[in-house]
Amino acid sequence: MDEREAEDILRSAPFHQFLDLSFSEYEEGHVEIAVPMREELLVNPDRDLVHGGIVASLLDIAGHYAVLSEVDTRVPTADFRVDYLRPASSKPFTAIADVERVGSNLAVADALVEQEYKGEVQTVALGRGSYGVSHVD
Amino acid sequence: MDEREAEDILRSAPFHQFLDLSFSEYEEGHVEIAVPMREELLVNPDRDLVHGGIVASLLDIAGHYAVLSEVDTRVPTADFRVDYLRPASSKPFTAIADVERVGSNLAVADALVEQEYKGEVQTVALGRGSYGVSHVD
Amino acid sequence: MDEREAEDILRSAPFHQFLDLSFSEYEEGHVEIAVPMREELLVNPDRDLVHGGIVASLLDIAGHYAVLSEVDTRVPTADFRVDYLRPASSKPFTAIADVERVGSNLAVADALVEQEYKGEVQTVALGRGSYGVSHVD
Amino acid sequence: MDEREAEDILRSAPFHQFLDLSFSEYEEGHVEIAVPMREELLVNPDRDLVHGGIVASLLDIAGHYAVLSEVDTRVPTADFRVDYLRPASSKPFTAIADVERVGSNLAVADALVEQEYKGEVQTVALGRGSYGVSHVD
Repeated sequence: MDEREAEDILRSAPFHQFLDLSFSEYEEGHVEIAVPMREELLVNPDRDLVHGGIVASLLDIAGHYAVLSEVDTRVPTADFRVDYLRPASSKPFTAIADVERVGSNLAVADALVEQEYKGEVQTVALGRGSYGVSHVD
Repeated sequence: MDEREAEDILRSAPFHQFLDLSFSEYEEGHVEIAVPMREELLVNPDRDLVHGGIVASLLDIAGHYAVLSEVDTRVPTADFRVDYLRPASSKPFTAIADVERVGSNLAVADALVEQEYKGEVQTVALGRGSYGVSHVD
Repeated sequence: MDEREAEDILRSAPFHQFLDLSFSEYEEGHVEIAVPMREELLVNPDRDLVHGGIVASLLDIAGHYAVLSEVDTRVPTADFRVDYLRPASSKPFTAIADVERVGSNLAVADALVEQEYKGEVQTVALGRGSYGVSHVD
Repeated sequence: MDEREAEDILRSAPFHQFLDLSFSEYEEGHVEIAVPMREELLVNPDRDLVHGGIVASLLDIAGHYAVLSEVDTRVPTADFRVDYLRPASSKPFTAIADVERVGSNLAVADALVEQEYKGEVQTVALGRGSYGVSHVD
């Protein structure tokens, strides 16, 4: 699927609008999604900590679009794992995903969420998911 | 942690307010969270399909509070797996979680999201997570 | 697949012979595999602790045959998660698995390994896997 | 833990002797384990396919020793995920693992199993696990 079509789908989901997502990179098998920081993403207004469900969702969404960039079909998530490495604080972050394999029925993608911390880019969380694919171009 | 304190935390997160979450059950080691359906939870306004990231977040949140009901500390998710069994459609659903084990450093909780479909309750997705615990009551 | 055919496959694998596996139950969607204790399964001869890789393998194997009991095709594991709840000690144990769902491309099975401890049956570990299925009976 | 001590532990497990494991690399946070091919590792003597439980075990073992190389304590696997990308055939392979993070209670390691196929090195399976750590050097 090409970037314009994928971007249309990305922007059509109300949840993605809540998260204000857009592609900063979109290549075959590799996508990066920029996520601006907003107070709504925090666990609560008094703590400088992004909600884990949002981090997990971003990993899944990035993996999904990485697979989508290689095929021309719907790619529902079959299953998904997230590992949190460090708390995500109230700064912009990026979700990055790469396709590990596209098979005849299933694709596997790896994702990470990263964020700048004291001048360095740090990985906040890792994700890995299996996505159903019906037919591959 | 008792229900009132947990409910305060549940309601304080803007993401939970977006999802409009409340406990329908809260016992030691077992919680149920009612989720009303709203168009914002769908993949897009034209498809009768709940966003997978939202289902995953609900599983993680339910597991988190199930662990919290047994301890008196923060319980950050260490890692998490979700398996999608069936698409979730635009109806109210419930996230249910049970604690499998609380250890000295880590707790494991199982969760599921269920929804009524043609008069029957169906499991939409399964979740299992590891949660850090510092000290157990 | 019927029990006799499944038992033939179970017994044909050298790794299963190393583990000395046999079915104690085999129904459609549910299998139980009995595992006798032998010193070779321990982490080392001086510690009363079963090797985690063996526990994980048993969970995967049990899930595999639970799916196989419902279909008539090969069912390669696509991905798999194991959660260790308690150390497994040097006693016989049982691996139990149930199918959660069989779809057109993928099946999900849940498994556990249990063991008697001080007169009670305890769950040692939990497993959940996705298995490829080509065609369902 | 230094290589000699880790190698002693690696060799003391009967299951590792069954698999005939040895380190081909052992650095802080990174290990590689060489696995010679033997017929006992195959699904059955007539199929050129390594048993998935063995591949999963190797991923877990490699991750375990990668964490061990950074700490001076026991590091029991808390939970573990494996994704199979391609069937492993009857050739020698290597299990490689890297530590992603060592926290105060938990470490995360990534692992892969690779094998030469038609002159190219291919990744056969991916693993990611959480390991309990009590105290870090």
